[in-house]
Amino acid sequence: MDQQLEKIRHSLSHLLAMAVLEIRPQAILGIGPTIDNGFYYDFDLDQPLTDADLPHLQKSMKKMAGRGLTFARINATPEEAARRSAGQIYKLELIADLKKSKQPITYYQSGEFSDLCAGPHVSNTKEINTDAFKLTRLAGAYWRGSEKNKMLQRIYGLSFSSREELNAHLALQELAKKNDHRKLGQELDLFTFSDLVGKGLPLLTPKGTIIRHELERYTVDEEKKWGYQHVITPPLAKTELYKISGHYPYYKDTMYPAMNVDDDELILRPMTCPHHFMLYKDKPHSYRELPLRMAEISPQFRYEKSGELTGMMRVRLFCLADAHIFCTPEQAEKEVSQVLKLIDKVNQTLGFKKGKDYFYRLSLGDRGNTEKYYQDAPAWEFAENLLRRVLKKAKAPNYEAPGEAAFYGPKIDVQMKRLNGQEDTAFTVQYDFIMPKRFDMKYTDNKGREQQPVVIHRSSIGAFERTMAFLIEHYAGALPVWLSPVQVKILTVGKAHRIYGKKLLLQLLDAGIRAELDAENETVGFKIRQTEKLKIPYALVIGDKELNGRPLAVRQRGQSAIKKVAVKKFIAQVLKQIVDKKG
Amino acid sequence: MDQQLEKIRHSLSHLLAMAVLEIRPQAILGIGPTIDNGFYYDFDLDQPLTDADLPHLQKSMKKMAGRGLTFARINATPEEAARRSAGQIYKLELIADLKKSKQPITYYQSGEFSDLCAGPHVSNTKEINTDAFKLTRLAGAYWRGSEKNKMLQRIYGLSFSSREELNAHLALQELAKKNDHRKLGQELDLFTFSDLVGKGLPLLTPKGTIIRHELERYTVDEEKKWGYQHVITPPLAKTELYKISGHYPYYKDTMYPAMNVDDDELILRPMTCPHHFMLYKDKPHSYRELPLRMAEISPQFRYEKSGELTGMMRVRLFCLADAHIFCTPEQAEKEVSQVLKLIDKVNQTLGFKKGKDYFYRLSLGDRGNTEKYYQDAPAWEFAENLLRRVLKKAKAPNYEAPGEAAFYGPKIDVQMKRLNGQEDTAFTVQYDFIMPKRFDMKYTDNKGREQQPVVIHRSSIGAFERTMAFLIEHYAGALPVWLSPVQVKILTVGKAHRIYGKKLLLQLLDAGIRAELDAENETVGFKIRQTEKLKIPYALVIGDKELNGRPLAVRQRGQSAIKKVAVKKFIAQVLKQIVDKKG
Repeated sequence: MDQQLEKIRHSLSHLLAMAVLEIRPQAILGIGPTIDNGFYYDFDLDQPLTDADLPHLQKSMKKMAGRGLTFARINATPEEAARRSAGQIYKLELIADLKKSKQPITYYQSGEFSDLCAGPHVSNTKEINTDAFKLTRLAGAYWRGSEKNKMLQRIYGLSFSSREELNAHLALQELAKKNDHRKLGQELDLFTFSDLVGKGLPLLTPKGTIIRHELERYTVDEEKKWGYQHVITPPLAKTELYKISGHYPYYKDTMYPAMNVDDDELILRPMTCPHHFMLYKDKPHSYRELPLRMAEISPQFRYEKSGELTGMMRVRLFCLADAHIFCTPEQAEKEVSQVLKLIDKVNQTLGFKKGKDYFYRLSLGDRGNTEKYYQDAPAWEFAENLLRRVLKKAKAPNYEAPGEAAFYGPKIDVQMKRLNGQEDTAFTVQYDFIMPKRFDMKYTDNKGREQQPVVIHRSSIGAFERTMAFLIEHYAGALPVWLSPVQVKILTVGKAHRIYGKKLLLQLLDAGIRAELDAENETVGFKIRQTEKLKIPYALVIGDKELNGRPLAVRQRGQSAIKKVAVKKFIAQVLKQIVDKKG
Repeated sequence: MDQQLEKIRHSLSHLLAMAVLEIRPQAILGIGPTIDNGFYYDFDLDQPLTDADLPHLQKSMKKMAGRGLTFARINATPEEAARRSAGQIYKLELIADLKKSKQPITYYQSGEFSDLCAGPHVSNTKEINTDAFKLTRLAGAYWRGSEKNKMLQRIYGLSFSSREELNAHLALQELAKKNDHRKLGQELDLFTFSDLVGKGLPLLTPKGTIIRHELERYTVDEEKKWGYQHVITPPLAKTELYKISGHYPYYKDTMYPAMNVDDDELILRPMTCPHHFMLYKDKPHSYRELPLRMAEISPQFRYEKSGELTGMMRVRLFCLADAHIFCTPEQAEKEVSQVLKLIDKVNQTLGFKKGKDYFYRLSLGDRGNTEKYYQDAPAWEFAENLLRRVLKKAKAPNYEAPGEAAFYGPKIDVQMKRLNGQEDTAFTVQYDFIMPKRFDMKYTDNKGREQQPVVIHRSSIGAFERTMAFLIEHYAGALPVWLSPVQVKILTVGKAHRIYGKKLLLQLLDAGIRAELDAENETVGFKIRQTEKLKIPYALVIGDKELNGRPLAVRQRGQSAIKKVAVKKFIAQVLKQIVDKKG
């Protein structure tokens, strides 16, 4: 963090308080810290501010900054502080806390305004580039974040070193908002929610389902090429299974409530592993079968707090392209390395770039945390070094995160970077030396002896809901041809072109292209705009010149030029894009 | 039912009681009725019988029948009856009931034995063909079927008109047992169960999953050709949704318990309809969009009693190829007719013959049952006649079943006939005029007026679990090529043939054929037996004569002759079988 920028942001929050006091002299002040990209300040106001006040406040702040105010640090005893902040009930509460914990109490004086504050600040407000900050919005915020306290009014501001940086940030936010998958999902009619169904439970429309089915089929087919065997297991089990696996204590708060059925207690699964372990244990295994790669398109249920639910990005039921690789400890390194290759292949197909759109995080255990982590230092070292080695060999962009491992072993997180700058864990690759013990898994080695396999937990494409959200935002809705719900739209100019339009539609459908016909009584301009709005890859305008197999007038998404292409050639081109999953 | 056979069966149960009394004079008798294919008799015995006693009992019965016993009917007052059945506590209970309901009390006397019985019986046991009956098994049965009563010992017997019929029935039972999908499912490694996962929740192995995925893809692709749009909705919802739909009172006993999540009560869905209705209602609809055919590969949860769970045939979680057609009342007849055509197409592809393997049952409402059925006689008449008409036009083999309709309308049941003679409802086609009202569904007609659609509920292939069970039994595990988990097995003769075996394997895999290589150190005879046991369609024996692209020695499942076929031609043949879904 830039130290000077931190000082500027902090100082701006003081100027904001001064500006508010000019128009609301009775304001009682809360706190005014710096945050990512800027600052905020909380106020207790008899007469609330509105969005319309923000430009005026910003103007006042600029004016004050222009006056070249200095910030002077003042040390105060608790008694002096109490006098200085008389009537400021929130500050008095903070002063009492500081007194109790015997921390120094300091004020910063700028002009006639002084605020309880630990600093640091700029020495002179002339250091602030007044073109590089902006008050953005009002929000409600409970004092000290607790619902039991009064709700104060918070003003947020952005602050950067230069006007260019501010504008770049604003533009990115604008873009992120425009491409938010929740907004695009609705505009493109991909998914919806229903109050009667429940929160965090998306319903995929026919168009959204086409994307999902394409992704699922691709995943299954691709994984089979990489030696995976797919299985299907029920998305619920006896609670006991999750007690044996040891998941229960860690996950019970995010699991759905148990259901009593006859004498059994059933629970919706929060992960697939124990089901796959049951299948593995269903029969004896020889070393010849290893590595055994067991995959599933697996629905999983997690109770996420309603405040954390976000469109398709964070849901209460997701479907993970899950797998568990049972192998010897000697095979593990090669297997993890193959998993990373598969992940790269899948991401490449989807159009995500390594190091730009996604990168890796190595999540390590914490030898000190004996409560969360299984105690076996050599096993942890072995596993962590193995993952480190694989990442190094793969030259995969990555960083390490101590204390972020799963309770049963270290993991590689696949981190996705979203347009708004937010980083999300898409899915993980985990090395597990605990579950094979807990479930007493076995295989017979080449000398007929019983041995214990290790398990690699992994996904290849992540949860389909989240992957769809990433894709929609990444492509701003203009999905590649193979994923587009409608690939070609035929637009007839007049009534006379409808018969040929229908014929062409059947020709495209027969070829396996998802095509639609718009033969409504509207202008071609209107029809083209509709096609563009729905981000359909190809529009074919059918007028007199295109009748009866003459070259098509092909309008490609995002291009204004129209290309003349023979029908057969056009079909072949589109089919090639579908098969190659490119374009 | 053959009246004479009924008499014979009834008489045989008396002879059975007499035979038991010969070796257990203290036996207290329960009841001895006729059932499908035979009869049984219940006994309360101090010293239980074992299977080893059955041949002796059967012999005694034959001997008695040979003596030409007559059956004399005797009317008795309750008092006479009580004397006659002194000490026979179960008979005394029945006599008390008959007295209470003022019904006639009759005995049938044969030799020295007389039994409380309404008849009828043969006049002389010489009428019984003693080669046409057989005692089959012992079982426990509570007196009057209640767990509160004592458990008696039941002896089952088969009885037919001729020895040939008995033998045919026994052979069929033997075959049904051999082809029981539970047995074959294990032998062919298709699915399994786990105590820790729970009852009625099958886990599909890699091989079983291949079959399931093939069926799912086929269903989706085929349904799309017939104008269906697929969607994906969550398999749970607020309980409220099922209260609005009216399902709740009818299905709550077979639904899983509700789960409290935040302030909501969620429940696993027992059917898909309300989810599809929510999607339909998510936006306005024009008559131009109708018929709107919304389909889903839909997981559904039903709490079946543990005693009723049967392999994959009856489970607690199944996945239905479900759909709801929203249409105008005028379109309904054509839509139902199309659905029957689709069902025929799908069944034809799967190899089920109409009129032999499956037929139709028209389940009608009951105007008298005002509790179960919505009151709207003209609507019921209309809907029932519509379905009747469609069945007639389609010349579909069918029969009518009054009082079997769904609460929201009449339905056509698709009835599957199993090897053991049992008839199971595979799935249904339902005409629904109630849900559109309950959910206030709308569409705008061509004059801009709001109208109410009707809904047709249907499946095309049924629940995948059950369809798999039907298929396994129908084909005795020897599934068609396109559904076979392994389509071709390469068997090497010696070490020298392994390299070419591997090369051929890659060639087949590349072509998209599911092939495996057996290069173990075993004899070819052993390898062929393994291949046959697993019902793999093709075995290719690779010896000196087959090396390096020379014609393959192709051994087709069930045929002992070996055909010489060039590699390319063989691949083309298998691929054609896969694409055509034939052979």
